[in-house]
Amino acid sequence: MRFSTGAKLAVAFLPVLCASGIPAQNSAVPYQDIAAQILKKGLREQGAYQTLLRIVSAGPRLTGSPQAENAVQIMAQHMRELGFENVRTEPTTVSHWVRGAKAEGRILSRRFGNLPVPVCALGGSIATDPKGITAPLLEVRSLEELQQVGARAKGKIIFFNRALDPTYLDTFPAYGEAAWQRSRGAIEAARAGGVAAVVRSLTLEINDSPHTGTMAYDPAVPKIPAIAISTRGAERLSEILQKDPGTRFHFKTSCRTLEPVVAHNVMGEIRGSEKPEEVIAVGGHLDSWDLSVGANDDGAGCAQSIEALRLIRELGLKPRRTIRAVLFMDEENGGTGGRDYARSPNRKGEKPIAAIESDRGGFLPLGIGAGAQGAVFDRIKSWEPLFRTMGLHWIRPGGGGVDIAPLADAGAVLMGLVTDSQRYFEVHHSGLDTMDKVNARELELGATAMALMIYLVSQEF
Amino acid sequence: MRFSTGAKLAVAFLPVLCASGIPAQNSAVPYQDIAAQILKKGLREQGAYQTLLRIVSAGPRLTGSPQAENAVQIMAQHMRELGFENVRTEPTTVSHWVRGAKAEGRILSRRFGNLPVPVCALGGSIATDPKGITAPLLEVRSLEELQQVGARAKGKIIFFNRALDPTYLDTFPAYGEAAWQRSRGAIEAARAGGVAAVVRSLTLEINDSPHTGTMAYDPAVPKIPAIAISTRGAERLSEILQKDPGTRFHFKTSCRTLEPVVAHNVMGEIRGSEKPEEVIAVGGHLDSWDLSVGANDDGAGCAQSIEALRLIRELGLKPRRTIRAVLFMDEENGGTGGRDYARSPNRKGEKPIAAIESDRGGFLPLGIGAGAQGAVFDRIKSWEPLFRTMGLHWIRPGGGGVDIAPLADAGAVLMGLVTDSQRYFEVHHSGLDTMDKVNARELELGATAMALMIYLVSQEF
Repeated sequence: MRFSTGAKLAVAFLPVLCASGIPAQNSAVPYQDIAAQILKKGLREQGAYQTLLRIVSAGPRLTGSPQAENAVQIMAQHMRELGFENVRTEPTTVSHWVRGAKAEGRILSRRFGNLPVPVCALGGSIATDPKGITAPLLEVRSLEELQQVGARAKGKIIFFNRALDPTYLDTFPAYGEAAWQRSRGAIEAARAGGVAAVVRSLTLEINDSPHTGTMAYDPAVPKIPAIAISTRGAERLSEILQKDPGTRFHFKTSCRTLEPVVAHNVMGEIRGSEKPEEVIAVGGHLDSWDLSVGANDDGAGCAQSIEALRLIRELGLKPRRTIRAVLFMDEENGGTGGRDYARSPNRKGEKPIAAIESDRGGFLPLGIGAGAQGAVFDRIKSWEPLFRTMGLHWIRPGGGGVDIAPLADAGAVLMGLVTDSQRYFEVHHSGLDTMDKVNARELELGATAMALMIYLVSQEF
Repeated sequence: MRFSTGAKLAVAFLPVLCASGIPAQNSAVPYQDIAAQILKKGLREQGAYQTLLRIVSAGPRLTGSPQAENAVQIMAQHMRELGFENVRTEPTTVSHWVRGAKAEGRILSRRFGNLPVPVCALGGSIATDPKGITAPLLEVRSLEELQQVGARAKGKIIFFNRALDPTYLDTFPAYGEAAWQRSRGAIEAARAGGVAAVVRSLTLEINDSPHTGTMAYDPAVPKIPAIAISTRGAERLSEILQKDPGTRFHFKTSCRTLEPVVAHNVMGEIRGSEKPEEVIAVGGHLDSWDLSVGANDDGAGCAQSIEALRLIRELGLKPRRTIRAVLFMDEENGGTGGRDYARSPNRKGEKPIAAIESDRGGFLPLGIGAGAQGAVFDRIKSWEPLFRTMGLHWIRPGGGGVDIAPLADAGAVLMGLVTDSQRYFEVHHSGLDTMDKVNARELELGATAMALMIYLVSQEF
């Protein structure tokens, strides 16, 4: 496209907040100028990206790892430098699983030979024997299929090869539908008599990156080792199995679960000028998987949360209630950080008003989900025109996430930033979740929307 | 994010086409099922990405180049294989500029030494002397500034260093505001007595990729050579100039303008079942700049246009009017393709009803701009709920582009697909516009929306 067209087109598409578009009873108009200030300062300075660079400087931040704890210290220091108040860490005891050496996986076929395929241990899995495990395979695509094979599963490596359904507009339901094979694959395989589980990576892409993630064991059945295989590896394995049903699989992992360790949530705030005991939290999770630096999952949400406070503070806005950026530990491996934040003695005397979480990647923000009903939802919904001026399209029922969910009991309204989901599972839990997958402007737009939301709640609730 | 949250959240955010949201007079409801079929088939098969792979297989497709003509043949063959009717090419005479050897650029400072910086010739520029040009610099950030320096510009290389304004939500106005320095920089520099023009690349990113694009000369002033410098190069040059105002610049280009050549538009269609002479065009431009394969600008728009027809055809839908995919030549260097399509003898007896163009990159589609008024716009706008089910958010006034604009005189309603603009100028006209910048699902979503739009127009206008 040439410049002339762009210039002409663009003017027509800029959303404008016209007074007529706003219900008479609502309070959006006085905030129009503040929304514009937040947006322009954010886009000019792109502070979220700068903060994200600091987060990923700690490396992958697996629950319980020294890297995760180092990230806590880096972020505490960062929030102090930004002038946040009451910067502090709070302990949370977390599980401590370590991956060990890089996993090895091989297809062993008489007809097609010995083919290495990309695999990785699933989080929480036991290791194989030091020599690895080698066994024939049974491929299934549903739990029902596995339950119907009977004795044929015995002694086999169960190969869960349910692909994500590409026909969903939103990719999250596609993920949700297929995630059972990762989370419960080892349990169901063992229950059927299998000796190990190989699980197709939970992504819509066909590529060579395995995707890890948490998995569970059931005390009622033996613990067996479980790995993820890349989607291209899974396709290849399935093809080979059809042509050579006697194909065996070999893999070797050396992961281990160590003793639980004390990790930390880290937070900083702007104290409310009128009702400091009433708290609005904005957060993401600082822990990540260990195959990359977790730029999107969830470095992005942490960076946006800090940026939301920075924008409000540096614009000289004085929230009536306390707004607090909270970086939670252990979202990926149990959620102790969210639970321990909610029940910390430091919460005594505090009233959690609302919490907003960003944990869907630093992609283009589309809207905000708000878990409120009746008049409270209506009030939040009445702010929608303001968010349109910041590039978002809607406020809908929904919202929240693992980390802030425990605040619901105390009455907090839970909200979530919803971003473009098309690219999320490309990178999620894989080696691909790196800085080059983050666009600084898209990331910042999420931060500016979160800033406006927490400011509105602080003034208007 | 873990799976449990995702699954729960996602359900709430899926847009639903509820009858109550649709004005009573509108015709959207009967098409709900068709919209769903188009969306699901598109997301399942991702044909747009497959077509785009074929387009980029021709390489960079600079106006007048053999690569561009090869792409025309590849696409004609592709449309025939897809079963399109009346697949044909139509001639258009285009300019033929060639870049020659890679441009060299160097900052020459007594204090900072001899620093190579990334540069490229602007499209249409004359070359330097074979030894290059070396001269002191004058930096300006606006035309007014240049006009006020008087004799100081004489003999200088004029360094246009106006950055794009990052504070716009939509990046197109930022581009539009700064594009004068590329399109008219050589004219204004020569008018002021300058010997060459060095223009800051038109992107919001700070990086090492120069961005080319078309530029003009004015017969009233001498032709002088013009290049783009990468944004990081421009920042560095500006810093050095401040500290060492005697700094000179050297660059060498060997680009040339050859004789005009006959190139081609290429098109294929589905013949209308009831009013075949009434035509709805869907298109993009097949020519690209030559620094990369133009995956987004505008291979994406071409691929989406073909995919829109493929989806309709393979779903067995029978459009009442003719729908035609048109891949235009020469958008970047004069727009002869669009003009010649509109005035081709083949248009005799045809009535152009509407045309929709995609030339903003294959990113997440946000909405559709429609250049219609009154009742016609209202009818198109009444389809908005259908497009919401396909992930778009709005239909607004606006729309069209260089290629389809000449159809306006014959009464066609001009429309444009509007995509997320945050990433577009990262890649636009640079070496970065490669396949890895295209997400197959985002690309496909644009194609499905275009398919629905042309089908609706074919049935309902």
